[in-house]
Amino acid sequence: MKIIVLGADGYLGWPTCMHLASLGNEVIAVDSYLKRKIAKETSSAPLVEMPGLPDRADAYFDLGRRGKIKVYEGDLADYEFMSKVMSEKPDAVIHYAEQPSGPYSMLGHKEAALTLHNNTGTTLNLIHAVLEHCPECHIIKLGTMGEYGTPNIDIEEGWIDITHNGRSDKFLFPRQAGSFYHTTKILDTDILWFYVRMKGLRVTDLMQGPVYSHFTDSMEGEEILGTHFWYDDLFGTALNRFVVQAVAGIPMTVYGKGGQTRGYLNLKDTMQCITLAAENPADQGELRIMNQFTEDFSANQLAEAVQRASKLVGIDAEIDHIANPRIEKEDHYYNAKLEKFMELGLKPHLLNDDVIVQMLEYVKKHKDRIDPSVVHPRVNWRR
Amino acid sequence: MKIIVLGADGYLGWPTCMHLASLGNEVIAVDSYLKRKIAKETSSAPLVEMPGLPDRADAYFDLGRRGKIKVYEGDLADYEFMSKVMSEKPDAVIHYAEQPSGPYSMLGHKEAALTLHNNTGTTLNLIHAVLEHCPECHIIKLGTMGEYGTPNIDIEEGWIDITHNGRSDKFLFPRQAGSFYHTTKILDTDILWFYVRMKGLRVTDLMQGPVYSHFTDSMEGEEILGTHFWYDDLFGTALNRFVVQAVAGIPMTVYGKGGQTRGYLNLKDTMQCITLAAENPADQGELRIMNQFTEDFSANQLAEAVQRASKLVGIDAEIDHIANPRIEKEDHYYNAKLEKFMELGLKPHLLNDDVIVQMLEYVKKHKDRIDPSVVHPRVNWRR
Repeated sequence: MKIIVLGADGYLGWPTCMHLASLGNEVIAVDSYLKRKIAKETSSAPLVEMPGLPDRADAYFDLGRRGKIKVYEGDLADYEFMSKVMSEKPDAVIHYAEQPSGPYSMLGHKEAALTLHNNTGTTLNLIHAVLEHCPECHIIKLGTMGEYGTPNIDIEEGWIDITHNGRSDKFLFPRQAGSFYHTTKILDTDILWFYVRMKGLRVTDLMQGPVYSHFTDSMEGEEILGTHFWYDDLFGTALNRFVVQAVAGIPMTVYGKGGQTRGYLNLKDTMQCITLAAENPADQGELRIMNQFTEDFSANQLAEAVQRASKLVGIDAEIDHIANPRIEKEDHYYNAKLEKFMELGLKPHLLNDDVIVQMLEYVKKHKDRIDPSVVHPRVNWRR
Repeated sequence: MKIIVLGADGYLGWPTCMHLASLGNEVIAVDSYLKRKIAKETSSAPLVEMPGLPDRADAYFDLGRRGKIKVYEGDLADYEFMSKVMSEKPDAVIHYAEQPSGPYSMLGHKEAALTLHNNTGTTLNLIHAVLEHCPECHIIKLGTMGEYGTPNIDIEEGWIDITHNGRSDKFLFPRQAGSFYHTTKILDTDILWFYVRMKGLRVTDLMQGPVYSHFTDSMEGEEILGTHFWYDDLFGTALNRFVVQAVAGIPMTVYGKGGQTRGYLNLKDTMQCITLAAENPADQGELRIMNQFTEDFSANQLAEAVQRASKLVGIDAEIDHIANPRIEKEDHYYNAKLEKFMELGLKPHLLNDDVIVQMLEYVKKHKDRIDPSVVHPRVNWRR
């Protein structure tokens, strides 16, 4: 298949490009480096900064890996560029090209406006470019489990049948998110659902939980092929941040009571899910929504798992319950369905000591690069 | 009260300014004339073109009407301007400032992108400007009954209690709209609900049906104080368009079978509802959603009502069922609740022959200004 990856420079983007290329697909990688720019502005940085896409693609090729990754650099929020990219008429397009930080979106008006216009604008541009060039192209859109929030009912996979006053209909599962960034993913789903109904697009919307780890099969131990490992309060996801705190000797910061439960997954399983989605496309005129995680953890459980694994490598990691900078339930019902990917054949890589130890070893190797000033939450939802 | 009306040059905006001023409120009218600009670009025009806001405000004052209307001209999608306007620290702000045409939003990418960025961007700007200057200000936002679409269940007022697998929670009523413009109103509701939860805003979101007629009490027969009467396929609502077709001797264009049912209201009742909402504000931290219409009609019923009233003024109006340019159900269940405004004291002006005859007389007076080329649908949802 010919597959375009939008947002190819990101934490998920680059491993996805390699993974799809290694399976024999023709891959086109696209990014504007918006995340790098935002990171610089907020003094955030990945543990190890990697070169830009052309150099990463060259390194992949030079190491003799399977396939070739073609690169486009430009701003997908600009329709002319998006249209040029999509004139490649791919079989599938994977849309990661969004500002991905909840805390960043809560900083102030400028950051909220950037998140709104970039994220929804890129989604709208993609839809129109697909309509213009390749209406049969399978759009695989990265949404988030965060769209659902933490409702007091079971979380279905995107849709729910409602019976009300004796009559019934099927609707999008109700959604209410915990950050403005997550809210823009709700808007994306609304926009996609509209155009699927009106124009018969073929769309898979993936409700993904927070991803952890740094390793994928196609990296095969070559650090030059590694993805950016983010650990700061803006771009770092919970488990990755905890591992860095453990290595740096900073107490792991659990927000509030720590009962906040989410569905998590290993980076390797993001690769698996994206591949399963691409190989089993949605139908024309279908908005297929799949939950993408493998197991639930509370923040406390994650911190305790890191504490336990740290002992194995001689680190005595502490846990600190700090005032919650976010507005969220710290103790709540959480039961999200995971059926569709299991039916497609997902084989989860579950979280265990080995996985965390591997992460600890990687971070230890780059311990001198850790900036402890960006780990503690810098954004408060109440201000 | 000090009340700011955003989108004050619009079909509803100008009558709202006069109405609120006539009740003794201090009114500030704001517009960028975006709708006039879009209308020019699409060869659409109101039946009679009125002067800009400063001249309309002067005319209101010169006629000795109660109060004074202060005018700001500028683009509310620009945060600096929005912030300047909201530094007036009003008690309430009425947000009409959106691109309001469904067919326009379906023309192509450019028009969809303008609708998305202008509408959601203005809403986000308003939220942040309220947070910056006047967090207790009551935001009265014009949504649309079109957000709900035509579900197979009763339409509640904004919220629904869902019981699922033995557990219950309260959610936003599920929404799926029939045009991209209407979809942006869904996005607005999502955005407002997020910031109400996080920042404790005070918001009323009005799910309004299509409005008809041209006359309000504060106009009192002075044409110079009249609102723009739109009748073209982009900006004209069904009943207004049918009246123009009847006068022009063009068959009334009912789309498809004509069973499309919506909740309609007289322009006078928009004035009443806005006033009732302003005088009975939502609580701090509440997203109050109220349905704003007075009676349901199918397209067929509206056309037949115009046909009947036309006979009374000697016009033999024809009805033509044309191929539906939209993608919508032409025969569906429709039962929308109307309780909250009735509890607040709404006294509906129902549709009858007198109301239609008054509209017919107004249009007859300006019959020579009708451009028959813009009445027939120019936008097809399928293209």
